[in-house]
Amino acid sequence: MLTYIFDKSGIPIYEQIYKYIKSDIISGILKPDEKLPSKRSFANNNGISTITIQNAYDQLVSEGYIYTIPKKGYYVANIDGMISIPKESTLSLDIKMPKVSDKYPIDLSGNKVNPDMFPFSVWTRLLRETISSRSQELMEVPPTGGILELRRAISDHLKSFRGMLIDPNQIIIGAGTEYLYGLLIQLLGNQKIYCIENPGYKKLVQIYGRYNIHCTYAEMDDNGITVEGLRKCGADIAHISPTHHFPTGITMPASRRYEILAWANEENGRYIIEDDYDSEFRTNGRPIPTMQSIDACEKVIYMNTFSKSLTPTIRISYMILPVHLVNRFYEQLSFYSCTVSNFEQYTLAAFINNGYFEKHINRMRLYYIRQRKQIINYIEESNLNDYCGIIENESGLHFLIKLDTELSDTEVIKRLNKKGIQIRALSQYFLTDNIEKEHYFIINYSNIDINKIPEAFENIYLIIHP
Amino acid sequence: MLTYIFDKSGIPIYEQIYKYIKSDIISGILKPDEKLPSKRSFANNNGISTITIQNAYDQLVSEGYIYTIPKKGYYVANIDGMISIPKESTLSLDIKMPKVSDKYPIDLSGNKVNPDMFPFSVWTRLLRETISSRSQELMEVPPTGGILELRRAISDHLKSFRGMLIDPNQIIIGAGTEYLYGLLIQLLGNQKIYCIENPGYKKLVQIYGRYNIHCTYAEMDDNGITVEGLRKCGADIAHISPTHHFPTGITMPASRRYEILAWANEENGRYIIEDDYDSEFRTNGRPIPTMQSIDACEKVIYMNTFSKSLTPTIRISYMILPVHLVNRFYEQLSFYSCTVSNFEQYTLAAFINNGYFEKHINRMRLYYIRQRKQIINYIEESNLNDYCGIIENESGLHFLIKLDTELSDTEVIKRLNKKGIQIRALSQYFLTDNIEKEHYFIINYSNIDINKIPEAFENIYLIIHP
Repeated sequence: MLTYIFDKSGIPIYEQIYKYIKSDIISGILKPDEKLPSKRSFANNNGISTITIQNAYDQLVSEGYIYTIPKKGYYVANIDGMISIPKESTLSLDIKMPKVSDKYPIDLSGNKVNPDMFPFSVWTRLLRETISSRSQELMEVPPTGGILELRRAISDHLKSFRGMLIDPNQIIIGAGTEYLYGLLIQLLGNQKIYCIENPGYKKLVQIYGRYNIHCTYAEMDDNGITVEGLRKCGADIAHISPTHHFPTGITMPASRRYEILAWANEENGRYIIEDDYDSEFRTNGRPIPTMQSIDACEKVIYMNTFSKSLTPTIRISYMILPVHLVNRFYEQLSFYSCTVSNFEQYTLAAFINNGYFEKHINRMRLYYIRQRKQIINYIEESNLNDYCGIIENESGLHFLIKLDTELSDTEVIKRLNKKGIQIRALSQYFLTDNIEKEHYFIINYSNIDINKIPEAFENIYLIIHP
Repeated sequence: MLTYIFDKSGIPIYEQIYKYIKSDIISGILKPDEKLPSKRSFANNNGISTITIQNAYDQLVSEGYIYTIPKKGYYVANIDGMISIPKESTLSLDIKMPKVSDKYPIDLSGNKVNPDMFPFSVWTRLLRETISSRSQELMEVPPTGGILELRRAISDHLKSFRGMLIDPNQIIIGAGTEYLYGLLIQLLGNQKIYCIENPGYKKLVQIYGRYNIHCTYAEMDDNGITVEGLRKCGADIAHISPTHHFPTGITMPASRRYEILAWANEENGRYIIEDDYDSEFRTNGRPIPTMQSIDACEKVIYMNTFSKSLTPTIRISYMILPVHLVNRFYEQLSFYSCTVSNFEQYTLAAFINNGYFEKHINRMRLYYIRQRKQIINYIEESNLNDYCGIIENESGLHFLIKLDTELSDTEVIKRLNKKGIQIRALSQYFLTDNIEKEHYFIINYSNIDINKIPEAFENIYLIIHP
């Protein structure tokens, strides 16, 4: 019969019993399959209640130290397998993780958000307020499209900021645009031909590739993708970024937008995916209305993200579906759970509704304007000016330079890398060989230390004009 | 020439200029395409610096009220389109959102977490600490598999809690198991035959369906899915939950686990997806080792989620890939971003590392044990006892009852619904007609108000024994 001495340390008796028995099992005093005393006799023997013993036994059962045979009693489990692994042991298998891209002291390619710009204190406060005032809602599973409050906030924001009239139920919130592309493919089907811009965002080719989709590309002229290009490749779905194309920076004029819409209207099942990824940072003149706003025939699927306007490490993006597609979405895909945490959905809704998002965008926009101006001013006043054209439209987080050099893009990049500078060439974004587009380079200024600009461009000058 | 009067209210002068001009544009005093004064003359005229004017103009440009022609100056934009939408207007389109399942006062089908059990105060504190101490890391994009610190915490937890030896790099974190299934399909290919248990989790059929996958099912015996079943349907991938099958509650014994592993080893390209969704709440005796632990041939993909152990509304799940698959994963899919927010990944890592997760699980487990016991005690002491068998193995968040009745399952459910009680039958989880499995019902007790139990079971009694 087990007899233990209980102290008055304030640790509940059941926990003391639990610890005694656990320790006896681990040390081998109690042997596997040995029967433990019945609750009643244990209780009588130690002068405590059976409920206390019950609690201790429950805990031991739940952790696998003892087991129970109904109507017979409790027995010591065989714990060999459980504790044979020493705590310190670590496993190291032959796993080849992707190399973290070499950290260059100066990175003109990175599309990062400056951590100093994130509104940490407001965000923390809103998170705390959300948690303390909404414990009930935080535990309720929202519809697939996300929490209504956030969808309403986004709809209000788009109305005042982009002049877009959206029903909150058209909005589908998801953990990143990549995830939403996957949902879209499931919605539109993988038998369609998806067409992307050339040059363009190579990740799209990879994503469509993983879904075994026929992904093609269409050439661009100075106004963006062309209808002839779409026809030539037999596209069903045109995946474009008319506000600010990456990497060329082209803004599609209204006339071309109507042409592309007309193309989509020629046949059932044609759609336009309008990726408006950095429209918040457009600064030149009056924004051109989104294609979603001028689409009268339910042909445009609008996508946007908080990755650029807030941070890519909170994964929140959204898409706006035309009415017939949102109905199809809820018919076919409503079994999916929304992929964004309730905690962050409610916090973001409060962030938008209280005006912080607009303030934050304005602050970021001015920061980017200043970054861009300082870099362009530097180039214009430096030795490089005679060998470097600047192609920009006062928008977004990057611009292009054209270098007057005989060196291949690969060679320029190689030599700059040696100097600790990372840069990308426009030619790297072509899905085809396109040799006449050499010598254009992308200057991504979203998180560049402005003090390093002279060093960067002095090195570019020395490489092309040694 | 514009002349404005500036007050000393503390509002910066540039903001006052910005507001004056904006208001003049909106009211029509300044007309579209009208040229604004140059910064210099405006500054001289008002006795302020050109920098101040520059800031005001920048702001107006960024909001689209004015535009600039390089080397010419600033002009009033045509804002017709921008502000034509009255703020109050709301759009309401003909969108059919899925009906929220009628809220029954008593829901024996719901698999919800009791909101009172979520550790809000600890979570808030850890979130706040994370944000204040990790601003840099919070802004850095993690590898596709998730933040190393969380993967390490999960690996440590699995070692002490489940006796599993896992390299943190084998772990892939994602926004829910549904999302991870999608990644798995992309990794294993959609040409394989995926086999699920019958009865089983119908959502799997829907997910595989959306990926156009050949999804089949295999019958179970008392020990779970059988090798003959897998052979009969020509399966390549067996998707199973050996720890605690839903909805039957069957735990697959070790011998059957080895048989299934042997089946997987017969051919290249065969895999087992081991879904361990509620293993934390297993309480009967020593836990059987996971299939992942006894797999020596890289055949088992282990999946688990924090949906049951924490809350489904923070979307965090993970899978553990065998070494050759994790290498393939990073070769082929590392272009994807991790779908879980950095903020919640770091918070969860701290939650696990500081011992809160283990405490929380223990607390939840005891809560579920108590819920289950109270319900079973009630049934055993009620009129229903003679007409109701209880099938349970002291595990998970649900058990089965078998009712002694001639009524069809549909009829029982219909009559209970009328009384305000929601319940699901085992027969609803069969992927085939399986009439001999009628009269079994699922009692999900994860968030049942225990005071409503007498009403619920009294009604069941009255329906089968009027």
